[in-house]
Amino acid sequence: MPQPVTTLSDRLRLGELRDVNCPSRGVLKHVSSLWGVLCLICLQEGTMRFSQLRRRAAGVSEKMLSQTLRQLEEDGFVHRQDFATVPPHVEYSLTAMGHEVSAHVAALTDWIEGNLPAIMEHKHRAMTTSA
Amino acid sequence: MPQPVTTLSDRLRLGELRDVNCPSRGVLKHVSSLWGVLCLICLQEGTMRFSQLRRRAAGVSEKMLSQTLRQLEEDGFVHRQDFATVPPHVEYSLTAMGHEVSAHVAALTDWIEGNLPAIMEHKHRAMTTSA
Repeated sequence: MPQPVTTLSDRLRLGELRDVNCPSRGVLKHVSSLWGVLCLICLQEGTMRFSQLRRRAAGVSEKMLSQTLRQLEEDGFVHRQDFATVPPHVEYSLTAMGHEVSAHVAALTDWIEGNLPAIMEHKHRAMTTSA
Repeated sequence: MPQPVTTLSDRLRLGELRDVNCPSRGVLKHVSSLWGVLCLICLQEGTMRFSQLRRRAAGVSEKMLSQTLRQLEEDGFVHRQDFATVPPHVEYSLTAMGHEVSAHVAALTDWIEGNLPAIMEHKHRAMTTSA
């Protein structure tokens, strides 16, 4: 049987994320989408230009990268510095909040990648059992 | 300027997630989608039946919940126990790997919810500045 939710922080936590109108759902989407994750992790290494980020996040389109960076900027995780030059020179870096959230994102992705062999083995076993 | 990636684990980590064909991208999607997150966090409380999970994850359709649970089961994070009764009685619980990954997911969502006031304030400031 499920154990009851006991602490107030647990109640608030579940209460918010479970609320269909809670803006935390949008923020979660921005930081945990594949491109959001890749932007946050790449920017942990330091300030980058758009073209550098695009090379590092293989497979992302220009449009998706722009949209992802704009969302992360609006949430307060990414700082965008436009040097107003011709040709344009724009640099992206993590804010203090961005460093904090990207540390949590990196812990999650590190775990996934470290445990990928076990996950793949499980998938393989499940497939051969059901076949 | 971006700092160079120095450790082998960093290289491997980025190398894998950046690879468009790496299955870690799929696993990330399963655990960090809104419904994946809600399933993992709810199941931290204990074993639950489908209908209990559906009530707790407000807004999820039956179809999406089934699909999310099946993906988490295939990845080895959720155990599905079918008691083969009429009417059907099926219970879901976290596996050992599921407990580990959900701890990382919960750390991320806790951070987001704890910092939501600061994030919303940033959004509001950005909107009023650009208006």
